[in-house]
Amino acid sequence: MSEKPLFHRVAILGFGLIGSSLARAVRAKGLVGEIVAGDRDPAALETIRKLGLADHATADLAEAVRDADLVVIAVPVAAYAEVGATIAPALAPDAVVTDVGSVKSAVIASLRKVLPPNTRLVPGHPIAGTEKSGPESGFPELFQGRWCILTPEEGTDPAAVGAVAALWRGVGSDVAEMDAGHHDRVLAITSHLPHLIAYTIVGTAVDLEDSLQAEVIKYSASGFRDFTRIAASDPTMWRDIFLNNREAVLDMLQRLNEDISVLQRAIRRQDGEMLHTWFTRARRIRRGVIDAKQA
Amino acid sequence: MSEKPLFHRVAILGFGLIGSSLARAVRAKGLVGEIVAGDRDPAALETIRKLGLADHATADLAEAVRDADLVVIAVPVAAYAEVGATIAPALAPDAVVTDVGSVKSAVIASLRKVLPPNTRLVPGHPIAGTEKSGPESGFPELFQGRWCILTPEEGTDPAAVGAVAALWRGVGSDVAEMDAGHHDRVLAITSHLPHLIAYTIVGTAVDLEDSLQAEVIKYSASGFRDFTRIAASDPTMWRDIFLNNREAVLDMLQRLNEDISVLQRAIRRQDGEMLHTWFTRARRIRRGVIDAKQA
Repeated sequence: MSEKPLFHRVAILGFGLIGSSLARAVRAKGLVGEIVAGDRDPAALETIRKLGLADHATADLAEAVRDADLVVIAVPVAAYAEVGATIAPALAPDAVVTDVGSVKSAVIASLRKVLPPNTRLVPGHPIAGTEKSGPESGFPELFQGRWCILTPEEGTDPAAVGAVAALWRGVGSDVAEMDAGHHDRVLAITSHLPHLIAYTIVGTAVDLEDSLQAEVIKYSASGFRDFTRIAASDPTMWRDIFLNNREAVLDMLQRLNEDISVLQRAIRRQDGEMLHTWFTRARRIRRGVIDAKQA
Repeated sequence: MSEKPLFHRVAILGFGLIGSSLARAVRAKGLVGEIVAGDRDPAALETIRKLGLADHATADLAEAVRDADLVVIAVPVAAYAEVGATIAPALAPDAVVTDVGSVKSAVIASLRKVLPPNTRLVPGHPIAGTEKSGPESGFPELFQGRWCILTPEEGTDPAAVGAVAALWRGVGSDVAEMDAGHHDRVLAITSHLPHLIAYTIVGTAVDLEDSLQAEVIKYSASGFRDFTRIAASDPTMWRDIFLNNREAVLDMLQRLNEDISVLQRAIRRQDGEMLHTWFTRARRIRRGVIDAKQA
């Protein structure tokens, strides 16, 4: 370790793709003194130990957070309230608590109910991932060149926010800060809606006659396979996202439904000009994505 | 050239991504004697000549097909009727005519109206492509490991079908044969619907408030960027596909709409179990795609 570590002891609760990648990354970069893994899944614990992903690994989450100056909650969002209640009595008084959940308003609400009132909570969301799950799927470069959004409440200790931001920058991410509600709207359209639609369209294909279904797979290179990749993401994580960002997702879905109707009508009425205009406009957005180096 | 070429003189009409990739591939594999490029776009012609993609290049499509024993129509589907009428008087009596269009019933209907009655027509559709367009985007490996679907009408000369199939196998593709109407239904769900939805969702994002739009691009790595890539495809080609495969697309869109409503309702009613079941089922399809080596 070339410099003073950002945190002496970080407890990462939940060693899925994100948790285990973060462990690998902070260790590779020498950003923390000690890594404690907390995971209730015996198979995950075994993988953590076999791959040596943490200095200690335990199924007891209260034990995991003891003496940690940073706690990273990386479990499915539905488990936050229960995990928060479990660790609350064991948290060091000056510990910083952060998380990696894909929704933020609901996360803050459920953690605030159970954590000690003065807990320095810095909610976070690394915009990174693959369709893989589990501790064996993680890799240290996952956050490289990606965004991490922090959504601290007003009045949060700037030192805590700064330390969490420094950790994410240390693993190669750009850090942005915004209001939790705004985050949830941005992600509803960039992430939640695309996943919902990918799940839907793959489901629609599953319901086709058997003969057609085999061919859908055979000829998937024509566009469908990109949807199957998105729809291969963890079902539990995504169920929780939709349940916990319900209003923003339903709002964006309503807009999408209106737009689908417009295109449907254009196809039915053979309005080629309207289709061409719409498609050309969509193409420009791709240019923006490439220019922003997110392609 | 190690063996007897499959065709002595192939005329490829339309040197976009597919046409120019096919020219590169058949030349690399020594499958044909001579390649004639027919393209009315002066910029495309210049690129063809500069890159040496054909033995001859001309804007006169009738001239291009003269003495060709294989004619590959690779122009946008909307131009088929006019291109067919232009080349009809110049076609060699025993020429085989094929194409690479993404829809097949409409293509057969429009070509049959204008080609000489006995033309040996072998409609084809290579399931390959990128979101790029134009002769400079092509590459010889584009068809490697991909499917090419041929949809000859009943009674087509088996020798003609066999020769076209051999050409596609020669450039690395697997060849399947099916009825044109069935092809159009399979592609409606595997290709046309995914593209339509990608175009729609990117359009929905474009219509958001300006502040949100910049963030949509910034945080696109979370799922949205896959849609922008699909939606970057050629607008003219896709307009033609939707206009020419209207009924199958509208049928699949109707099914998708019903499924969207089901998921929308599950989110509104917080039915986590239903969402989880749906998502898990979608994940299995991904496994099929990987097993079929189309991932």
